[in-house]
Parts: sequence; structure tokens; C-alpha cells
Amino acid sequence: MTSSKESGNLKIALAQINFLVGNIAANVDNIIKAAYTARDELGADMIVFPELIVTGYPAEDLLFRADFIEEANNAIHHIAESVNDIALVVGFPELADGKLYNSAVVLHQGVTLACYRKQALPNYGVFDERRYFTPGNQPCVFEFNGNFIGLTICEDVWQEGIIAANKQAGAELLLTLNASPFNVGKMQQREAVICSQVKAAQIPLVYVNQVGGQDELIFDGASFVADAQGEIVYRAEEFQEYLGVVEFKDNQPIPTTCVPLDERIASVYHALVLGVKDYVRKNGFSGAILGLSGGIDSALVLALAVDALGNDKVEAVLMPSRYTQDMSNEDAALEAEILGVKFHTIPIEPAVSAFTGMLAEVFAGTKKDTTEENIQARCRGVILMAMSNKQGLLLLTTGNKSEMSVGYATLYGDMAGGFAPIKDVPKMLVYQLARYRNSISPVIPERVIIRPPSAELAPDQVDEDSLPPYEILDAILERYVEKDQSADEIIAAGFSREHVVRAISLVDRNEYKRRQSPPGIRITTRAFGRDRRYPITSGYRGIKTVNQDHDNQPQDNSEISTKEKT
Amino acid sequence: MTSSKESGNLKIALAQINFLVGNIAANVDNIIKAAYTARDELGADMIVFPELIVTGYPAEDLLFRADFIEEANNAIHHIAESVNDIALVVGFPELADGKLYNSAVVLHQGVTLACYRKQALPNYGVFDERRYFTPGNQPCVFEFNGNFIGLTICEDVWQEGIIAANKQAGAELLLTLNASPFNVGKMQQREAVICSQVKAAQIPLVYVNQVGGQDELIFDGASFVADAQGEIVYRAEEFQEYLGVVEFKDNQPIPTTCVPLDERIASVYHALVLGVKDYVRKNGFSGAILGLSGGIDSALVLALAVDALGNDKVEAVLMPSRYTQDMSNEDAALEAEILGVKFHTIPIEPAVSAFTGMLAEVFAGTKKDTTEENIQARCRGVILMAMSNKQGLLLLTTGNKSEMSVGYATLYGDMAGGFAPIKDVPKMLVYQLARYRNSISPVIPERVIIRPPSAELAPDQVDEDSLPPYEILDAILERYVEKDQSADEIIAAGFSREHVVRAISLVDRNEYKRRQSPPGIRITTRAFGRDRRYPITSGYRGIKTVNQDHDNQPQDNSEISTKEKT
Repeated sequence: MTSSKESGNLKIALAQINFLVGNIAANVDNIIKAAYTARDELGADMIVFPELIVTGYPAEDLLFRADFIEEANNAIHHIAESVNDIALVVGFPELADGKLYNSAVVLHQGVTLACYRKQALPNYGVFDERRYFTPGNQPCVFEFNGNFIGLTICEDVWQEGIIAANKQAGAELLLTLNASPFNVGKMQQREAVICSQVKAAQIPLVYVNQVGGQDELIFDGASFVADAQGEIVYRAEEFQEYLGVVEFKDNQPIPTTCVPLDERIASVYHALVLGVKDYVRKNGFSGAILGLSGGIDSALVLALAVDALGNDKVEAVLMPSRYTQDMSNEDAALEAEILGVKFHTIPIEPAVSAFTGMLAEVFAGTKKDTTEENIQARCRGVILMAMSNKQGLLLLTTGNKSEMSVGYATLYGDMAGGFAPIKDVPKMLVYQLARYRNSISPVIPERVIIRPPSAELAPDQVDEDSLPPYEILDAILERYVEKDQSADEIIAAGFSREHVVRAISLVDRNEYKRRQSPPGIRITTRAFGRDRRYPITSGYRGIKTVNQDHDNQPQDNSEISTKEKT
Repeated sequence: MTSSKESGNLKIALAQINFLVGNIAANVDNIIKAAYTARDELGADMIVFPELIVTGYPAEDLLFRADFIEEANNAIHHIAESVNDIALVVGFPELADGKLYNSAVVLHQGVTLACYRKQALPNYGVFDERRYFTPGNQPCVFEFNGNFIGLTICEDVWQEGIIAANKQAGAELLLTLNASPFNVGKMQQREAVICSQVKAAQIPLVYVNQVGGQDELIFDGASFVADAQGEIVYRAEEFQEYLGVVEFKDNQPIPTTCVPLDERIASVYHALVLGVKDYVRKNGFSGAILGLSGGIDSALVLALAVDALGNDKVEAVLMPSRYTQDMSNEDAALEAEILGVKFHTIPIEPAVSAFTGMLAEVFAGTKKDTTEENIQARCRGVILMAMSNKQGLLLLTTGNKSEMSVGYATLYGDMAGGFAPIKDVPKMLVYQLARYRNSISPVIPERVIIRPPSAELAPDQVDEDSLPPYEILDAILERYVEKDQSADEIIAAGFSREHVVRAISLVDRNEYKRRQSPPGIRITTRAFGRDRRYPITSGYRGIKTVNQDHDNQPQDNSEISTKEKT
């Protein structure tokens, strides 16, 4: 056991730990255990935990439960009494005078040295902090071993002024507790924004982020320490738990390990693997099951599932129909074989025939349409759900973001499942991720990557019969969904009116379908989850008709009916 | 055309109108049309519209679209230029200096007399106004025809102080623009809260609420005028459009029509009818379809659908299995016949047999469990969705709130559908609504009301095999879900530990299932929608196990798998 007890010197541990929302007792045990390890094995004087770590983040409306808040506040006393000879900086929902604060408390030798209340409460995107918390209104600087240390929480350091205010209040070193979710490019953005403020204020900063998957959100970790010049002098591994330590001499950090940030595609892949792993593990599933079609989406999800859970925890099901090409069956089987995954083949014809017969009378005289395609997809849904139910395996949904956007999927059919790993991954990025995964070891057959995508629900069907080419569709969707651009803006940027009209009207009309989709992993700046809250009943049309006739009739949006694969 | 032009006299029209979220052009036309009617037919000097009526409420994340906000702001100029000789008070999202306000503008003879910015922005329950708007910080009193009139918007008049501040700022009369959603008892609560403030401040108040269904929410209207003593001197019809007018002499309203408020059960029934009607109409469906089981839930939904849409717009499907009792088929057919609704009978056996055969090999050696029950429910889901798809009819889901709470329903089976009318109606209230509907004219056979409820997915199955009796279950659920009481509190209130443990653990473990349920009509103070935001991945357990062992293992919540009807 070594500890830097000379005045002015300080060893700070960064607890980048994966916690479970709602399980306060287990989280407290983990906090105490990490503090012991930091003190006894790393010689730390202080350990900093992420934002709201006692309850997990985001605890959402659990924060309205009096029993839950009481347990969280009692937990702080328990932690304080349980650990000595190291200071703990812990995030928790502080109840005071009937108000709830998002707070960071400093505990040392059984007493509270300081307690800071978060000032900047994000209430945009996936965040609803104004729903729960009252904002604090002042900085909090405390003295520890002769050092003056300021406390901040997440959004605080993204806003102008709060870092500088801490410096002004006498802080020589800043701690930041975070629950900052991943999206593509987020780590780079985070370091750039925060380090530029650090540099301006000339104050070193310790940034501790949680790690792990929580429903839609992935917390990537990537905790770091910046010196007063805004240079990163320490960075923890991304996407995994890590208990690091950084030594400070006279408040200046001594440079140490600096794990480089993942490249763009690699970071998405790692986020998806962590997301699948944590959803399965934290929800107590014994493994996962999925349908393998021979297409690129299910091939990628299979690889992700195996990388997350191991091939002995994953089962695949091939469910060919009369429209399934031989190469689809061959490639699907090959994918399972390469990865060593148990698979079953269950042709869907008997069920499709049964339904066709049962509906013959009511459908007499009608034409074939998407109804018949949807029946096929739903027969597969019934099979997969039955196998999931019987074995307690999580059914993984294999649809991508491009499909989700335009509703090119069947409710209760290929949309069935408990978790949708690539729900926020646009089709073109699916291809990039497949190539990335194959660059590590070849698991997805080349033919799966190069053949034209098809739902195989009708003879010789390909996706481009119904949709613009994916490279165009994805670019339009990014502008419309993520950047809120209008149709006119997108057309002005060089896209054809026909493609824009088609894509946008499908996005507008398929909100009802997305509302019933399983949760999936958020990797962009705007996923179809808590991120994008659109009414289903809506007269808004991103694209105006040429002869706009404003009568008082209800919108003709009969496409909002439950037709799919339109 | 008559108008009260003597100074001090004023005729104010209350525009309780049903608008469409997102369709600004149509809303503007309706605003202008209502203003003409108020001026020319009612002799009004001023017409007051509901909150944010230009965009509809709630427009949710449409408010982030620059094109949408620009259109809404331009619309105000268009309205001002289009109507003369009557003042219009209109709610709209005001864009000023890059900030968005929830504002009320007064337009008269082409110019803006005043513009008020809502100060109290609700960010709880179903409301997310801090996500979009910046709060205003001062009252707004304007002069019109010699009268000094204050402006307030919805939440403003629920909070202490804002009514009084208007009086202090010189207002002699207060206008309130609202989008206040219904729940049981809300109208009574609304009048009590607001009139007590009115009485205290001694200022008369004109309260205009919108009417209509918007996804989960029902706006009940019930617009009113209170005099300075807080007495209601005018009240509009509930649950329907109404353009009323009240005359003021020296700022005192002259008492006029005062439609009494609905009784509790009648108000719920009317809310549900309006909700079904508006969801179908505003989303452009030609009608609705539903499965009729012979049980009370589908019987009630059929009656609601017929009352909302007419019997020629509703179709029913009977889908018996080997476990369906004869009386179920008889009663279901009788319900359709009494209401004059077209119905089909499609036995599900062929599809169930097909799936049983297809799964025989993979299920070899396993025991029968809920999997086989779910297959039956899902075969019905496939049939109903196919008929919905083929005809463009909205599939109504028939599940109630008690089932939704404890997960006693099959995902993609009886949970399939586009809209769930009684999703927020607890089972005991379902019975009361059935009796209420029968009191108007008998449409639900008595046997359906008195027989023990059953899912009929296994021989001689009744709901109470799996669940506490509904009168107990509903009482526990109200305390746990709506009032956030802890298990200990509920047990202390006199409920058996066994029932509380069973009910609460089912609620906790079935969040994943509710997340994929269709939207339904909110009638309580906490529906399973935007109202209750719980994590799926959660270690919180409302009920603690007796020997609580806080280890670091993931929770054993394997029931969170996709098993249903547990």
C-alpha cells in the first residue's frame, strides 16, 4: 500500500465502472469495492465515480418513487461509514427540502466534505433532467490535502462559463462526473469542447464517464485527464470497465497511459457489441436467438451477437419460403457454420398455406398485395417468438435504420423481438461494419455483401423496387431525420425531387410503426427512441404537394394503415 | 350582425375547436372561419382560441423543425391580414431572437395589440415543454375597447401567483388559452383549482380549452367563464366542438348557458368514443376491425367503436380455438348482431396445427408451457393484421390497463393493433363502462359481464389462476403505478403480501412488453405512455426478497424474456 501523503501531491482514481440502473444495493457494494481497490492496490487518495452512480443513469421515472430516493440517500451514509483513508466522490440524487438535485458528494473519514448540485440540466435529445431535478446555482470548491478542488457534473462542462467560474471560485483542479452517452464521433467532440474550455481557464480536469449499455444508450467510458493546457495526459480504455489512477503534483497531472481513441467504424462496432452484451446480461437472458435470411443485416447481427455473447450462447433459425433463393439459404448456413453457431431450418410454407386457406373466403375477389408479403414475415415472427419463449432466449431483431425510417419492415414480422442491435445503423454503415468485422476475421461471405438487398417476399424482389438506392436514401434520411432539414433544403443540396418526396413521405407516415418497434442501440445523434418524439397523428408533411389545397378534411394518410413493405 | 360597441361592453367568443397537430394551413383556415362566424353570427368583439392552436398541441419534436416554426410564425401575419372587425387571441410557437416561446398573440385590424409568453412551462407527466420553450418572465395586460385584459396560458393559472400578478398589473379580466388533457375527475379539479384563485384575486376569467383526440391524449373542452367571485357563469359542452359567446358588462360576465359536467363514468365513456373517432378520422382510416372473443374487453371496445364510427365502419372477427367455449362464440356473435356489425368467423386450428408441426422437431422433449398459449394468440394477430392490411382498416387492440400492467397479454398476439382504446382502463372500470353503455341501450349480453374472465388459451383457464382477483389487483396497481407507493405502504394499507408481491413483480418485469404496445387513450393520472418513463433494464424491485443478497451478479430476471401470459 503506497499513498502520496506529501502535501500538494494527490493520486486520483477514475472509476469507469459499469453499473446497473435501479439496483442501489449492488451499486453501493461496487462503489465500496472499487474504493478499497483504489486505496489498497493503486495507492489512491481519492476515487471519482460517474454521475448518479448510486442509482445508475438514467433511472428515469424511478426518480419519482419516494422509496427509491430514500434508499439512494441512505446509501450515501452507508458508503461514508464503510470506507476510510480514501476520499470518495459519488454522484447521487440528493433530496433536500423536498427538492431533488443531481449532486456530487465528497465523502472522507465518515463525513461529507462537500456536496455540489449540478447547474446545467440537459432537457433535450435523450435527456429529461428538468423532469426530475432542480438546478443548483453555484460552484462548489473544497479543500483536500491542501488542494482546492472544484466539482462539476457532465452538462456543466459543455456550457460556457462553469469551468471558468470554478477557477474564479478558487479551484486549482476540476473533477467532472459524467454519464455521457456514445454516438459516432462523440469522444472526439467531447474532448475538443471540454479541453478548449480547460485551456482557456488554465485548470486541469479529471473526466470520469460511466461505461456500459442501458436500453438504448451506450456509455463509452473514455475517461480522461487533461492538463491545464488542455492536453490529454491520460485516457482510459473505451467500452470497458477500467479503474485508472493519475498522480498530481501541485495540481499538475503527471502524464501516463493514453489509450488512443477508436476509429469511427471500430467505435460503432464496439458500441454495438457492448450494447448486446449488456442488454442480455443485465436482463438475465441465457442467450440470444435470431433469424438468418442470407442478407447482410442478419449476417452482421449474428457476428455482433457472437462477439458479444460467445457462439455457444447464440442460436440461428433459417426460415425459407418459396421466394427464398438457394444462395440465401447457402450463405445463411455458411455464416452460422463459420461462427460455430447452432442453427435450425424451418420452412414457413405450412403456416403460410394454412393462413392462405383460412383467409381464402374473406379475401375472395381481392388482388395480391403487401398483405401476402406480410403474412410470410409474420409467420417467421411466430416461429422466432415461440423458440424465444420456450428457451428464454432474447430474440434479436435484425432491421437497420434505413428500414426503420421508411417503414420497410413488417410489424410483428421481421420487426418482432426484444432488442434491435442495428436499429440506428443506416444501411450503408451496415456494409462498412461488415467489412470492418471481416477485416478482423472473415465471417460474412463476400456474396452477402455484394448481392443486391432483397426482402425475398415476392418473386425477384429487390429493395430498390420500392426505395431509392441506399446511398441516396441514407443521405436524405440523415438530412431529414438527424439534421431536421426541410425537403426544399435537401433538394437544393442536389437530390432529386422524386427521391426526396418518396423518402420523406415514407418517414412521415411510418411513425406508428416505429412506435411499436423494440428498443435498439443509439449510435447517431438522433435515434428513433427517446431522441425523436414525433406525433403519430399529424398533418405535418415534410414535402408539400404541388397543388396544395387547404380544405378542412382530414389528411389522406391512408398509408398510415398497417400496410407494410410498401 | 350585432356588436356591443358601447365602451365597457364586450362579447367574447370561446373557440373550443378540434384542430389537427402539424397541419398549420388547415388550422389557419379554421381559425379564420371561426372568427368570421363569431363576428357575423354571434356578434363577438373578440374570439379566444386554445393554446398553440396554430400548430396543434402537442406538436412534440415538430417544434425543432425550422420550416415548421417559420410556417407557424408566418401564419400569424396571414391571420392578422385576413380578418377585420374582431380581435383574435391565438396561441402559437413564437420565434424571437433564436428562442422559442409558447405565446398568445392578440390581433386586431391587421396589427398585433399584445403578445404574451407563457411563464409556467410544465415538464412533468405527459408534458415536455422545457424541451422546446423558453419561459416568459412577466404578465401581459392590454387595452381593448376600454377594457384592461390579462393573458395567461394553461399551466400559468394552476400555479400560485400568476393570476394575482395579472390583477396587480392592472388586468380587470383574464383570458386563459389551454390545451389541458382529460383524466377522470380533471374537469372538476380544474374548475376548483382555478376558481379558488379567481375568487382570491377577484378577477373574472375566460377559460378556453381545445377539444379532440391526439394520439394518447383526449382534450375534453369544457371551456368556461368564471365571474370575479369564482362562480361558473358559462360552460361549453364537453367532448365536442363548440363556439360559444359570453357578454361582459364593465368586465362582469352575464350568466348564460352552463352545461353540467359529465358524471365520472359517462365522462370516461365519452372520452373513449372521442379518442377512437379522432384517431380513425385524423389518420385517414376508412374504419376499424377487431377480434371478438366473447369476453368483456372486446365487447366494450366493439360498443365504443360503433358509437365512435357507426356500425357500417366496423368489422369483427371471431377466431375460436379448441379451448373456446360455445358460450364465448354465441355471445360474440350476439354482440355483433345487436350492434349490426358485419362479422367473420375464422377458426385458428389450421394455423396452430401448422406451427405445432413446424416446431415439433425443435420442441421435442420439452414440456407445454406459455409458448403454446402464445402461438394461439399470435395466430389471431396474423389473421387480424392481414384483414387490416387488405382493407386499410385500423386494428383495435382490446386489452385493458390491468393486463398491460402485469403483462397478461401476448406480444404480437392480442397486443397487435394500431390503437388500444381501453389500454388505460382498469378491469373493474371496464365492467362499470359496460354497465353504463347498457344503461343507454343493451348491447353487451349480461352473461359476458357476469362470467369469470378467461384468456381461453388452455383448458378451463380463468384469469384468477394467474392473477389476484381484479378488485384487489386494480387497487394495488393504482397505488403502485399511479401513486408511486412502495410495497410496504401498500401492505400496510391492508393488502396481502402475497398479492402485492405478485402484482408488483409482474409490473416491474413487464416494462419491455408495454414498450411495444400500441398507443391508447389516457384516462387516468398516469397511463403507460409518455406519462410513465421507466427503464426496461432495471435492477429496481418494488418488492424486496426476504433474504436480500446484494451480490454483484446480474439480476435474475429471466421472466423479462419474451414469455407471456405468465
